[in-house]
Amino acid sequence: MIYLDYAAATPVDERVLAAMQPYWSELFYNPSSSTLAAKKVRTALEDARARVAHWLGAKPAEVVFTAGATESVSMAINGVLRRYPDAQVLATATEHDAVLATAAQYNHALIPVHANGTIDLEALKKLISETTVLVSVGYANNEIGTIQNLKAVAAVLQEARSLRRLKNNPLPLFLHTDASQAIYLDLHVSRLGVDMLTLNGGKMYGPKQTGILWVKSGVDLQPFIIGGGQERGLRGGTENVPGVIGLATALDIVQSERHQAIATLSALRDTLQRNLQEAFPDMVVNGNQKKRLPNNLHVSWSGLDGERLLMLLEERGVMASTGAACAANKHSKSQVLTAIGCSNAALQGSLRLTLGRLTTPGDIVEASRAIIGAVRSLA
Amino acid sequence: MIYLDYAAATPVDERVLAAMQPYWSELFYNPSSSTLAAKKVRTALEDARARVAHWLGAKPAEVVFTAGATESVSMAINGVLRRYPDAQVLATATEHDAVLATAAQYNHALIPVHANGTIDLEALKKLISETTVLVSVGYANNEIGTIQNLKAVAAVLQEARSLRRLKNNPLPLFLHTDASQAIYLDLHVSRLGVDMLTLNGGKMYGPKQTGILWVKSGVDLQPFIIGGGQERGLRGGTENVPGVIGLATALDIVQSERHQAIATLSALRDTLQRNLQEAFPDMVVNGNQKKRLPNNLHVSWSGLDGERLLMLLEERGVMASTGAACAANKHSKSQVLTAIGCSNAALQGSLRLTLGRLTTPGDIVEASRAIIGAVRSLA
Repeated sequence: MIYLDYAAATPVDERVLAAMQPYWSELFYNPSSSTLAAKKVRTALEDARARVAHWLGAKPAEVVFTAGATESVSMAINGVLRRYPDAQVLATATEHDAVLATAAQYNHALIPVHANGTIDLEALKKLISETTVLVSVGYANNEIGTIQNLKAVAAVLQEARSLRRLKNNPLPLFLHTDASQAIYLDLHVSRLGVDMLTLNGGKMYGPKQTGILWVKSGVDLQPFIIGGGQERGLRGGTENVPGVIGLATALDIVQSERHQAIATLSALRDTLQRNLQEAFPDMVVNGNQKKRLPNNLHVSWSGLDGERLLMLLEERGVMASTGAACAANKHSKSQVLTAIGCSNAALQGSLRLTLGRLTTPGDIVEASRAIIGAVRSLA
Repeated sequence: MIYLDYAAATPVDERVLAAMQPYWSELFYNPSSSTLAAKKVRTALEDARARVAHWLGAKPAEVVFTAGATESVSMAINGVLRRYPDAQVLATATEHDAVLATAAQYNHALIPVHANGTIDLEALKKLISETTVLVSVGYANNEIGTIQNLKAVAAVLQEARSLRRLKNNPLPLFLHTDASQAIYLDLHVSRLGVDMLTLNGGKMYGPKQTGILWVKSGVDLQPFIIGGGQERGLRGGTENVPGVIGLATALDIVQSERHQAIATLSALRDTLQRNLQEAFPDMVVNGNQKKRLPNNLHVSWSGLDGERLLMLLEERGVMASTGAACAANKHSKSQVLTAIGCSNAALQGSLRLTLGRLTTPGDIVEASRAIIGAVRSLA
């Protein structure tokens, strides 16, 4: 099988598994226990936190370990909006359901995007009202791979904050980004200008249901899970020691190898794209062709049955998807493709191909052949 | 080292690790993906759910996989109280911080216990008011090991429900139990009479930050984490496939071997207790001597410095604790010992010894010697 669905799930890297190994049955102690042995576990946990902080250019105390990206997003949005229940949250129209469904509980509005998936900054400026307290803009889209210029978004918020000060409006205005798919990109939070950042261990060759929420000092969130007071009181519960160490190791690997990965993955992706474009001149490539994840290729054939295509591809040894896995499961229409103005016919005939660490040039040759054959047989 | 702190954390059983193994890097697919390979993962996940349901005598659809017991408790209490924000929640005074701190956000009252830690049913009857919507009573106490008669608690609630119907009060009244420490006991929910039940993978030789909340059909909780709609919409986020399979395997093992474990552990514990009682006739054994967890021994020496004792014990090769690990970390006074009416002097001189799967008769001999020596050196 050729796996081209790395945006849905990544296999755990064997270096990650090795790093987790000692913490299952040997150093299994509760990191909150007061014995010296348990303190060793605590040290390993805090070392993992420092390593994550390193890649974010942040303070370790600002890194909150969570049980996955959806939880991180929930912690960020609920954490701010429960403090300011009458305030407003803005989210890009192309966000993952985790963001959209959580924002929908509150006074909210969606920020439109251009046809290539890039956020409409002028629209954002107009949408920021006196009651806006949080803006959530994903760093890189999970379906079409478009990368947002977070610095530019941050500049818009900075301007709005200045205006607020002039008007003596004390309401804060925070920028959260879901960076779950942005593992190959620069994650330095100060360069990005964000106040909160979500990462997902299960999308970076680490264990599933591990994640972080980076929370800038001074952002005062309502606690998400109260209990034993772990994670600075924001997320109670005995820490997932192997998971946290796995996540930190996964981040170490992906961030230290990211320039090499970008070169390799984008070359493979470009070959795949070229192969398909040569075979199908009318095929539409979605997303921002200049600012796109190196491992993402999202294409549409108007009038094609995408679900049938997926089945045919799997028969031919290629695993891919039409969009977000959780959306696939609910047979719902992609909000991303709707937001970029895809026609219904093109939307139904979409294919998301996401490459990863184990993708080889040979895979690309075979996958190209399989996709071309399958699409032709359906046309 | 002799580890006598199984109530704080358990090592992952190697059978559990083996069951998880295929799901890290081979069957790593997102269970929500629509490919056949991903559906295999979905099947394994649902098989794990059915196995958990089996031990609870429940329907698989009623089992919600969570990221640990604290989250389960949070989901239960917040899930009900956010539906009925003006209603009241009652919790035993000896509950874990996860329950007490979560309940404290709402209109709440604490149910007192007798000196042996058993819930005061007469007090409970009086405390249930017209606005009580949830009662949370831990199955077995995490510090002193006292087992509650949940059936008797359920009968009190049943009477209150009947009275409500007569008065046309439509408010529901649910019983939640935190069964994290009750892994050796009967977990059949219908026999217990509860509406919600919390279990913790990290306390049953499974992975940390895995747990379940069993939610009886008809109990309508406010979703805890919205997003991709996983776990019947109650807990969004890609499922922790290896973790869930680990938890189900851990529960299979502990429940299928429980009668043997009770016999072995209580015999070892009784020997340890006898050894200490012979050496220290004035030592107090806390908890309910007749209804106590088979692996729990909680003792007090009035006037002793418990923290010093722990350090001495670790030097002598014995790991134990004074109480809950997260409380130890905060140097806070045990609510359990306060609730059972422990004097301050006895409270400071407490030791919790919890045995487990790897405890041997030789460990008990050595631990007895070490504890007797350490206590004598401090007296």
